[in-house]
Amino acid sequence: MLERLLAPPRSHDLQAENLARLRQDSLTKPPGALGVLEALVIRLAGLQGRPRPRVDRVHISIFAADHGVAEENISAFPQAVTVEMIRNFARGGAAISVLARALGASLQVINLGTVSDCGDLPSVHSCILGAGTANLSRQPAMTRQQCEAAMTIGAESVELARSRGDELFIGGEMGIGNTTSAAALACALLTAEPISLVGPGSGLDPRGVAHKAEVVARALKLHAAELHDPFSALCRLGGFEIAALVGAYLACARTGLPALIDGFIASVAALIAERLCPGAGAWWLFAHRSREPGHAQVLQALQVQPILDLAMRLGEGSGAAVTVPLLRLACDLHDRMASFDEAGVSEKLA
Amino acid sequence: MLERLLAPPRSHDLQAENLARLRQDSLTKPPGALGVLEALVIRLAGLQGRPRPRVDRVHISIFAADHGVAEENISAFPQAVTVEMIRNFARGGAAISVLARALGASLQVINLGTVSDCGDLPSVHSCILGAGTANLSRQPAMTRQQCEAAMTIGAESVELARSRGDELFIGGEMGIGNTTSAAALACALLTAEPISLVGPGSGLDPRGVAHKAEVVARALKLHAAELHDPFSALCRLGGFEIAALVGAYLACARTGLPALIDGFIASVAALIAERLCPGAGAWWLFAHRSREPGHAQVLQALQVQPILDLAMRLGEGSGAAVTVPLLRLACDLHDRMASFDEAGVSEKLA
Repeated sequence: MLERLLAPPRSHDLQAENLARLRQDSLTKPPGALGVLEALVIRLAGLQGRPRPRVDRVHISIFAADHGVAEENISAFPQAVTVEMIRNFARGGAAISVLARALGASLQVINLGTVSDCGDLPSVHSCILGAGTANLSRQPAMTRQQCEAAMTIGAESVELARSRGDELFIGGEMGIGNTTSAAALACALLTAEPISLVGPGSGLDPRGVAHKAEVVARALKLHAAELHDPFSALCRLGGFEIAALVGAYLACARTGLPALIDGFIASVAALIAERLCPGAGAWWLFAHRSREPGHAQVLQALQVQPILDLAMRLGEGSGAAVTVPLLRLACDLHDRMASFDEAGVSEKLA
Repeated sequence: MLERLLAPPRSHDLQAENLARLRQDSLTKPPGALGVLEALVIRLAGLQGRPRPRVDRVHISIFAADHGVAEENISAFPQAVTVEMIRNFARGGAAISVLARALGASLQVINLGTVSDCGDLPSVHSCILGAGTANLSRQPAMTRQQCEAAMTIGAESVELARSRGDELFIGGEMGIGNTTSAAALACALLTAEPISLVGPGSGLDPRGVAHKAEVVARALKLHAAELHDPFSALCRLGGFEIAALVGAYLACARTGLPALIDGFIASVAALIAERLCPGAGAWWLFAHRSREPGHAQVLQALQVQPILDLAMRLGEGSGAAVTVPLLRLACDLHDRMASFDEAGVSEKLA
């Protein structure tokens, strides 16, 4: 089963990419003058296998779950907020709900397991793997079966989007305690000190951050013998929603659907996915640089430069969602600008 | 006449700004988690005088003109491109034409004077002040009358937008040679060395950049006695379209219409406007950091941080236009997210 999830990434379409590059150079502007927008549309062309890519159809999956480590007092918000926010997603009041509507994107909310019951919410997909993870600072967060199941749920949401003809996938997360889990995973994968990667999350003060780093240090010590393999590290230190993101990003690479990666937690999931399946990262665009301090190290390890830097630190896929209009405008410019020939504009002097 | 153009800026609405700040803190997200998007919507609230600002109605004015200094071979493109691009704007094939359509923004193209005649273009507003400016490296670029007339044309385009109920103003420019003029102005205002401010513009090679810096140095020497006053500096070293931008940005501050400032040339116009009328800058948001190297110094002098950094260097207001969707999403989030109370979500722990 894990084997299927880790199947190699699709290759991109070099011809479409080259045609897009030629088209960019023919448009009425100094070559390269649209900067990052040119690079993005050329990459999208290669990924979508068409010289004029589009991102009109965007799918957003929000994966939500609770974390046993919340009992260590590592969050600025009470654990009840995970369930409360799932209800808020369902009613359309959360940031990502507003953004999805504004973008005309499809939004799927998946509950992978919370401490208290969410009740019956018609617009929430319920795939309960447990009442949240176990406390990663005292035992493995997930069994291997739970982790694989979470990855599969993530993969299935991508496969559904792909089959419906969606052109871009965004994964978001919600789960009180999940920056602790993500920081622990990043420390394990990057062999970094907790203090260099742990941050305030939803708003801890410096004392809270120091305590959170101690909890992460304790977890790294407890699981030290099992952290060399990325899948084991994910089981030991991850969360259901983080594993779902890993599965989703791998499915994007395997099925050939470009993913737009959100902030710190999403990037840690991407780092795990790239370690599990080298080359998968070719299918991912990185949306924004989060305010969460550990994000910089994770981005550096992935050797990527995100598109935006807006000091956001909300999660829910919100940073990825606000990046969508830039991709759409890049596609519009590429598709609709006149060429030098068409417009009768003189080209650059030799 | 100049006196009217330099009338003091309107004050912003502190009450609307405070109400917007309170609302942001009530929404279901960690306080501050939307980063720059929160700061932008709070500023827009103060400028538009309403706690829930909108930027649905956006107006873009493109000011185009030729530069006498083009005869010094300081551009990578032939001078004919100014007129050719005016035609391209008129036909809808330029980057800003595509962006304006995608944003549903009104686009006005104003020809302030080109070397050769544009012909009759129904969608281009013709306000000819001369066959381009004079060569600033050999004589004053404009008379005081021309400069004032150009500023008035810019101001009138803002007044028209304001009277129609537009909610945001973008000024763009087109004119072969205008990065030379802008760099000369920036050197004069910042007492900086040409080599530190002159860049490749539409694509000069390093040898071309060195020559361009020499031309700017010659101009600064020639006009040295007249550069202490910003209006004189603008007459001596400016361009019709740059003066129009100065007039437009001042009119935004005077009439109370927020402006979104584009890249290097637009920011130099903003710097002149702020020197002419201190405090006017409170009405401007800076859209993006241009690839043109001199932009960083100009932004620093204005003490502003632009929203985007996409290595764009096209002009035409294009960098400002691509920033509009972010402002719109910031307004949507502000207006449509649920509060903690409404959603029944627990607030941050004490």
